[in-house]
Amino acid sequence: MPDLNIAVVGAGLMGADHVIRITERIAGARVSAIVEPDEGRAQAALAHAPGAVHFTTLDDALAAGVVEAVLIATPGQFHEPVLLPALAAGIPILCEKPLTPTPEASLRILEAEQATGKKLIQVGFMRRFDTEYMELRELIAGGTAGELLALNCAHRNGTVPDSYTNTMLIEDSVVHEIDVVRYLTDSPIVAIEVKHGKRNTLSPDHLNEPIFVLLYTESGVLANVEMNVSVQFGYQVKTEAVFQKAIAEIGRTTGMTLWQDGRYGGVENASFKTRFAAAYDSQIQRWVNATKRGEIDGPSAWDGYLASAACAAGVTALTTGERVDVVYAERPAFYN
Amino acid sequence: MPDLNIAVVGAGLMGADHVIRITERIAGARVSAIVEPDEGRAQAALAHAPGAVHFTTLDDALAAGVVEAVLIATPGQFHEPVLLPALAAGIPILCEKPLTPTPEASLRILEAEQATGKKLIQVGFMRRFDTEYMELRELIAGGTAGELLALNCAHRNGTVPDSYTNTMLIEDSVVHEIDVVRYLTDSPIVAIEVKHGKRNTLSPDHLNEPIFVLLYTESGVLANVEMNVSVQFGYQVKTEAVFQKAIAEIGRTTGMTLWQDGRYGGVENASFKTRFAAAYDSQIQRWVNATKRGEIDGPSAWDGYLASAACAAGVTALTTGERVDVVYAERPAFYN
Amino acid sequence: MPDLNIAVVGAGLMGADHVIRITERIAGARVSAIVEPDEGRAQAALAHAPGAVHFTTLDDALAAGVVEAVLIATPGQFHEPVLLPALAAGIPILCEKPLTPTPEASLRILEAEQATGKKLIQVGFMRRFDTEYMELRELIAGGTAGELLALNCAHRNGTVPDSYTNTMLIEDSVVHEIDVVRYLTDSPIVAIEVKHGKRNTLSPDHLNEPIFVLLYTESGVLANVEMNVSVQFGYQVKTEAVFQKAIAEIGRTTGMTLWQDGRYGGVENASFKTRFAAAYDSQIQRWVNATKRGEIDGPSAWDGYLASAACAAGVTALTTGERVDVVYAERPAFYN
Amino acid sequence: MPDLNIAVVGAGLMGADHVIRITERIAGARVSAIVEPDEGRAQAALAHAPGAVHFTTLDDALAAGVVEAVLIATPGQFHEPVLLPALAAGIPILCEKPLTPTPEASLRILEAEQATGKKLIQVGFMRRFDTEYMELRELIAGGTAGELLALNCAHRNGTVPDSYTNTMLIEDSVVHEIDVVRYLTDSPIVAIEVKHGKRNTLSPDHLNEPIFVLLYTESGVLANVEMNVSVQFGYQVKTEAVFQKAIAEIGRTTGMTLWQDGRYGGVENASFKTRFAAAYDSQIQRWVNATKRGEIDGPSAWDGYLASAACAAGVTALTTGERVDVVYAERPAFYN
Repeated sequence: MPDLNIAVVGAGLMGADHVIRITERIAGARVSAIVEPDEGRAQAALAHAPGAVHFTTLDDALAAGVVEAVLIATPGQFHEPVLLPALAAGIPILCEKPLTPTPEASLRILEAEQATGKKLIQVGFMRRFDTEYMELRELIAGGTAGELLALNCAHRNGTVPDSYTNTMLIEDSVVHEIDVVRYLTDSPIVAIEVKHGKRNTLSPDHLNEPIFVLLYTESGVLANVEMNVSVQFGYQVKTEAVFQKAIAEIGRTTGMTLWQDGRYGGVENASFKTRFAAAYDSQIQRWVNATKRGEIDGPSAWDGYLASAACAAGVTALTTGERVDVVYAERPAFYN
Repeated sequence: MPDLNIAVVGAGLMGADHVIRITERIAGARVSAIVEPDEGRAQAALAHAPGAVHFTTLDDALAAGVVEAVLIATPGQFHEPVLLPALAAGIPILCEKPLTPTPEASLRILEAEQATGKKLIQVGFMRRFDTEYMELRELIAGGTAGELLALNCAHRNGTVPDSYTNTMLIEDSVVHEIDVVRYLTDSPIVAIEVKHGKRNTLSPDHLNEPIFVLLYTESGVLANVEMNVSVQFGYQVKTEAVFQKAIAEIGRTTGMTLWQDGRYGGVENASFKTRFAAAYDSQIQRWVNATKRGEIDGPSAWDGYLASAACAAGVTALTTGERVDVVYAERPAFYN
Repeated sequence: MPDLNIAVVGAGLMGADHVIRITERIAGARVSAIVEPDEGRAQAALAHAPGAVHFTTLDDALAAGVVEAVLIATPGQFHEPVLLPALAAGIPILCEKPLTPTPEASLRILEAEQATGKKLIQVGFMRRFDTEYMELRELIAGGTAGELLALNCAHRNGTVPDSYTNTMLIEDSVVHEIDVVRYLTDSPIVAIEVKHGKRNTLSPDHLNEPIFVLLYTESGVLANVEMNVSVQFGYQVKTEAVFQKAIAEIGRTTGMTLWQDGRYGGVENASFKTRFAAAYDSQIQRWVNATKRGEIDGPSAWDGYLASAACAAGVTALTTGERVDVVYAERPAFYN
Repeated sequence: MPDLNIAVVGAGLMGADHVIRITERIAGARVSAIVEPDEGRAQAALAHAPGAVHFTTLDDALAAGVVEAVLIATPGQFHEPVLLPALAAGIPILCEKPLTPTPEASLRILEAEQATGKKLIQVGFMRRFDTEYMELRELIAGGTAGELLALNCAHRNGTVPDSYTNTMLIEDSVVHEIDVVRYLTDSPIVAIEVKHGKRNTLSPDHLNEPIFVLLYTESGVLANVEMNVSVQFGYQVKTEAVFQKAIAEIGRTTGMTLWQDGRYGGVENASFKTRFAAAYDSQIQRWVNATKRGEIDGPSAWDGYLASAACAAGVTALTTGERVDVVYAERPAFYN
């Protein structure tokens, strides 16, 4: 079977990374088009995509007939104007999270996807492809540890750029836990509440963090999320699952242990790029393989919508300090 | 210097344990009296305290002139009637936590202690004598990790007897974190809030747990406490400290690692008796040593009162689901 | 650039695994030919290699013009008759270890390769592609831990088939440490000595193991290797490096930690397939990428010869119990 | 029962430590006499032993009638002249290892002890009182992991003083493993062999280490010991036990874990004083308790002799590089 011709839309940090990944590590696919308005970025990415062509809009790329699938890696606010023509063209899409910044926009995307008669969109919640999350999910489903009662999550970034806002604590960062909690529990989040710890003065001045987010699920499982974006020492994502009869922990740092200078230990991950490197590869490889079979193999647009709706409630919770219920549209049969 | 003659009041589980400890592992002290109304318990304890005499009340023991210091290990509701005569006698006291079940009773004890003109009471918050808690406190005080921002605590018991009540989740169990959070942060707890995870159906029918307790400190540091008394697999107490520049974790299980039958790992503690064995020994040894110098060397009656007042707010928080402010009496200069 | 057309020679356990790997996870390559005399095995492998053609000899495959590179995964005694025609055809080769079972055969291969005027052979010592080995090598080279003084290695298999012989302890298993010790120390092994521990009675009757192998390097670094093929509990490969100022350990088991039933711990690897899964993928991907550039990117035929010569000495050491010096041919300038 | 009056003989590093231990942490015992020729050392020790009297010889202390038991902490060459009068006086003895520097001297001590008609000597192999060694011994004896096949031991000191000699590698350091291997395996060491790794240039000039010692036991279990006294980073003693069906490891560093500056980890022990602090306390407490019952509760003079004989062979093995058989005297029925 010939390689899948993928248009990567957006050649910023994430997009450039995906171009290298597809070219160098993914079987059965190639980057055939780079869609990016910025000439410099486009040229930098082209260097890693032999044979790819540069376009400034997806429409041009589609018109050129070199695109069989689309990987969207633009900032979230530009997802909708790329998703809609891609859906109109009827081609498979891997869309980086969030599906869209607002639940209203996500609902429009759901409409458009349903109009095509086929699930075309997969959303890039890559943690679902991390070995340890999968192992934990199996443990929960298997029942050997008893019922799941609670999840204690920590999500820690070393630093964030000045452009990172308080709202992004929810929309860019906690959104991963919002998806993962549902993935692990198979139960929707029904309410969100946000608490503040002591502010980290090493954080950019306009940020008020770390925050502690309570995610209430329909099942009764409570998820506590420490969200921390200025912890300086590295990048760390951990989840501790509290069962009736057991505790399970994932996300512990690994690698070579060194005893030196009176201490022992190892190197912490510097960013999500190393922490989730294998998960990103696996996500793209499985998407390519599924795409060739005419399927998706990961979170759907409906999952993207649910996360978007929960984030909207989360942003309200962040500013009010109150527990905020999450309101969801009814699930179309199409997404069952 | 001759051995310190200690009356152990109460020869139940804890008291009997202390009798053995003092006889077999503590330098410079002996159990001279066992005060216990139950004849069977008393005799069992006497077997481990060569030379000790049995009394049914502390007054009798004091009158017999064989007591230089008192270790109170009765249930909490009997602490006040033992503390008052011991204070009247002007002798040093180590009182198991809680000082008293209510803040009102604690205030009466504070009055009585002040009337003696001397700090005589040490309260048995033994975690302050655990090496790792001490290490963490030093790290916080030292400042090398930046300011402390938050504490994530887990307190897990395998099982509890049917006599254990929801209120005891706060008064018997979270009380340890209440003391330790202040010990670590040097900042009083100003408010408490309680959330419920999914109920553990392996818990006794009348219990609704695990609970997740938020302890708000004056300093802004937020402590999240998972309180779990039916986790089946063993006994585990962990604290994760979130700093500006670092994370520190204490309470990780240790010991021999075994690779067998497709798994690797070790044995978990079965109860607080093994988890905090060294801390109990150290607490009593340091108390004995300090007592001989006419001092106390650990949490005072004032610390006991603060914990009692915070617990009262915690019990209200448990039932209302609301954030409840903690009200404290003014600190007497005597306790500065 | 079009996909590299690879002939996989040998469709047994390892070969079949490589077919799946290349088809499903390796970018820029495809299995174009499966060379395997056994019809059943060939058909099973073809199911995972869309578009590949089945041949019974490499000559047929070469003659058909569908082969640009060769991956040799037959048993070691069949390597030479495949390597020679492949070299004659002048195409790049990835040859599973050992290069050949005897140093004499390896020298013939070196002759044939030199005759082509170009390094075409890479030998499948996949540990060099394992992240932790690479990390350790960098630590050694970097010098921050001081000079390397010794290596303590453990190589443990759960079980081996009855067909596994004592000689294979060296040739099939210790050969990995033989290569890795040189890779880590950049110093050839000059002598080998073998000690026996107590025999494992769970081992097949004809095996006398575990063995403890001392690898003496020219640099003075001594490597102690525990070689153990019946340890039952799983598969484990560890190395502890002893430096002047530090100790470094690699190969510690990782993954989800579970506290349950009075124990804590995790799942051990069941075989080399999971322990070194990422290393195998990385080895093949880097070989494909290098091959397209006309290079090799891993251990050469010379490395294969050195391991073969050391193994021959090791087999003598195994039977004599004496320290046996390793004799190497002079290194042709071609391999500098 | 009154406190046991102990004469501590030798107030150097170890003796002073034992004085503090007995005074501050051991129940049922006191230091009644300090026997030390050096006035300054004696006075320093007396400050930690209220009520103790200073003597320059053990005979003087015995004559003064204030000694019920003796703890010998002088350098090894002075053990015999203290042991003999103590045995003659018929009082219990805890003698720091080695019992004596030579097997001949040890045999004389055995004679003298037998003449008293009672086992009076316990030798200070304190590792037998370390929780993890005891746990490992139970695992071996229990048989659940199958038969023990081999032991991989590492014994690492940060630094040693210039006065430390190559011979002391065996007599002062490996002697611990020599005792422990027999304690764990219940099988005598029948031969010893010593290998050198690359020399550590941070070691004092006259030392040639690390060394790798093979201890062959009668049972067939082979123990490999890395002996390393200049590892700079701290103090570490580990044992890995290789079973038919399992691996067990003891001696892993524990304590608070810190994630900071791109790394995670903890603090390594700085010396045996912290690594084996609890074992030393337990050894002395159990010796005191047993002494009061008229028993010993630990390794006997016979154990001391066996270690001494094995060390003598070890010193020969160190210099010859050959495997050296250990020759033992016949075991007197007295020591069965």
